[in-house]
Amino acid sequence: MLHIEFTTDLGAKVTVDVESAAQLLDVQRQYGRLGWTSGSIPTGGYQFPLENEPDFDWHLIGARKWTSPDGEELIIHKGHAYRRRELEAVDSRKMKLPAAVKYSRGAKSSDPEHVREKADGDFEYVTLCFFRGGKRQDRYAAPARRSPARTEDQAA
Amino acid sequence: MLHIEFTTDLGAKVTVDVESAAQLLDVQRQYGRLGWTSGSIPTGGYQFPLENEPDFDWHLIGARKWTSPDGEELIIHKGHAYRRRELEAVDSRKMKLPAAVKYSRGAKSSDPEHVREKADGDFEYVTLCFFRGGKRQDRYAAPARRSPARTEDQAA
Amino acid sequence: MLHIEFTTDLGAKVTVDVESAAQLLDVQRQYGRLGWTSGSIPTGGYQFPLENEPDFDWHLIGARKWTSPDGEELIIHKGHAYRRRELEAVDSRKMKLPAAVKYSRGAKSSDPEHVREKADGDFEYVTLCFFRGGKRQDRYAAPARRSPARTEDQAA
Amino acid sequence: MLHIEFTTDLGAKVTVDVESAAQLLDVQRQYGRLGWTSGSIPTGGYQFPLENEPDFDWHLIGARKWTSPDGEELIIHKGHAYRRRELEAVDSRKMKLPAAVKYSRGAKSSDPEHVREKADGDFEYVTLCFFRGGKRQDRYAAPARRSPARTEDQAA
Amino acid sequence: MLHIEFTTDLGAKVTVDVESAAQLLDVQRQYGRLGWTSGSIPTGGYQFPLENEPDFDWHLIGARKWTSPDGEELIIHKGHAYRRRELEAVDSRKMKLPAAVKYSRGAKSSDPEHVREKADGDFEYVTLCFFRGGKRQDRYAAPARRSPARTEDQAA
Repeated sequence: MLHIEFTTDLGAKVTVDVESAAQLLDVQRQYGRLGWTSGSIPTGGYQFPLENEPDFDWHLIGARKWTSPDGEELIIHKGHAYRRRELEAVDSRKMKLPAAVKYSRGAKSSDPEHVREKADGDFEYVTLCFFRGGKRQDRYAAPARRSPARTEDQAA
Repeated sequence: MLHIEFTTDLGAKVTVDVESAAQLLDVQRQYGRLGWTSGSIPTGGYQFPLENEPDFDWHLIGARKWTSPDGEELIIHKGHAYRRRELEAVDSRKMKLPAAVKYSRGAKSSDPEHVREKADGDFEYVTLCFFRGGKRQDRYAAPARRSPARTEDQAA
Repeated sequence: MLHIEFTTDLGAKVTVDVESAAQLLDVQRQYGRLGWTSGSIPTGGYQFPLENEPDFDWHLIGARKWTSPDGEELIIHKGHAYRRRELEAVDSRKMKLPAAVKYSRGAKSSDPEHVREKADGDFEYVTLCFFRGGKRQDRYAAPARRSPARTEDQAA
Repeated sequence: MLHIEFTTDLGAKVTVDVESAAQLLDVQRQYGRLGWTSGSIPTGGYQFPLENEPDFDWHLIGARKWTSPDGEELIIHKGHAYRRRELEAVDSRKMKLPAAVKYSRGAKSSDPEHVREKADGDFEYVTLCFFRGGKRQDRYAAPARRSPARTEDQAA
Repeated sequence: MLHIEFTTDLGAKVTVDVESAAQLLDVQRQYGRLGWTSGSIPTGGYQFPLENEPDFDWHLIGARKWTSPDGEELIIHKGHAYRRRELEAVDSRKMKLPAAVKYSRGAKSSDPEHVREKADGDFEYVTLCFFRGGKRQDRYAAPARRSPARTEDQAA
């Protein structure tokens, strides 16, 4: 038996029993759909393989896609909206970085110091996750058969 | 089986077993009525839909309504009294914010730095919650049939 | 089933199973008598009704009465001795506070910054609890039939 | 049923079920012999009665005696070596302290600020425990029949 | 029954039940192979006996060996790459240190202050572990029969 600790959408601390390790990701999907999260965003953001970006299952980390009134696709995580950014590969003498996709947002005054990252000028931002390098892991993909709309219905 | 962690009205750390996810909010109501809380106030305060404000069930977060000797309605949460404030919608070139209702209190000398927010002048305050935007969620409403008075009796 | 987390007199972290919510305070009394505590002192100290002060059951918070060689009655909590202080009611234009009884001690060099409160001059103190206002709650009272001496025997 | 949380010798967080409160100290001895600890060193160090010092069971707090190549008896706790120091009673007008035995070590650069205590000059030290005053508690004593050598064998 | 707390490769907090203390290290190997870790890196890094270095089972702490495109052998732990460094014994009048092997990496801007260690100039690094002194413990060794390649297959 396993037990996974969540922070619910109401901020409550709730542990859920899980029969086996094989069912763990499905339990994370099931409760993540409701906005429940387990653990906190790792320093510098979650790291996933670049090949997982197109069909990544955001419910796994308690996040969801949301289209703004302006038509922009954003990721909502714990009430914050993160924007998609493509980073080109860097191949200079000083450093070598593969291409990546990053989801980040501008820092707010209520963000603690250790999650803020400096950008150009006075601007500070907070990173939710990086998709970079690695090898695609199918277990991170959104379930294929179920359309996002139907998934939302089931969670309601 | 689920397990929810509370801080009791005496400051003790107590976990309560819950049979199913469907019963979770009722368990939060049951113990919240006694002033038990789960988790801590999220940075910047809890976020609820504006349409939930009129009949919000404060027991869900371990809070309760209280009428002061001066006749003012306040929200008591962990021994602190929060005052209701209506914020008008902002629609300027710089920012765009929908109308909101906010419950906050003046900061005390014993409040840690990270919960204090600056206001005009030297004044600092602490936010319990925001009701803003979103879509009404019936599950956040106070039970309709039971009057507040009877609910208090049952908790006694 | 409930589960309460204690820090034992040896500093160990131990959780105790409790059959029902009705038994919780008795379990806190039983282990509190041994100096076990659950949770930490709330910022600014525990808050209890003033009417509970005369027969407050200090075991509820893992504390006990102790008479010093000088004949002074002190409260011992986690190895620190707290002294009783009566605070008169304040009723000025600037603030309005009811009469209170406070248990506090001078700060030590090993006390963390956030528990120290400034007093006159360089003096700093740490508050264990306040008895102020509110309505007497019988559940906070020391059991009437058992004398303190006999209670100590049973714990031994 | 009780449950005690340990940090293992590998730094893992492991909880052990314990049938009754009466067995708790024996479980602490059993795992403490392997270097497992529960909770952290209290601010200012553990406090034990002076009369417990001669036969104190160091396994209770996850520590052990170790004789250095120079023949000095040290206490090893979580990889640090603590030295025994006898403190004479102080009886001046300014303060009154009973005789004590203290186990401490010099601070290292990786020690966090809040465990460092200032001594003469620039020297800083970290205290594991104090044996001072109080009344001997037999439950803190090392088991009499088993010699320390045999105990080590059984743990191996 | 024992219960071990892990942070999974997705950052989730998951507890796994373990039948007996004898099975604990195998459970750590099983989940560590997936990048799950229990507890955090001790201040100054894990400490292991020098004789355990050649066949140390990195899965025990949720780490794994990885050969970079340049052919360098690195240790990957929670997404960071640590490099092997041999430290010669020091035997001066000022200090006496046995030979050691250390795994460390350069500090990143997102590393918290308390894990950074100063080196020459402005360079700062973070230590994963030290192999130094002590007596070989067979329980830390990688299982002999299974080749690393096959172990990876089983985890997939």
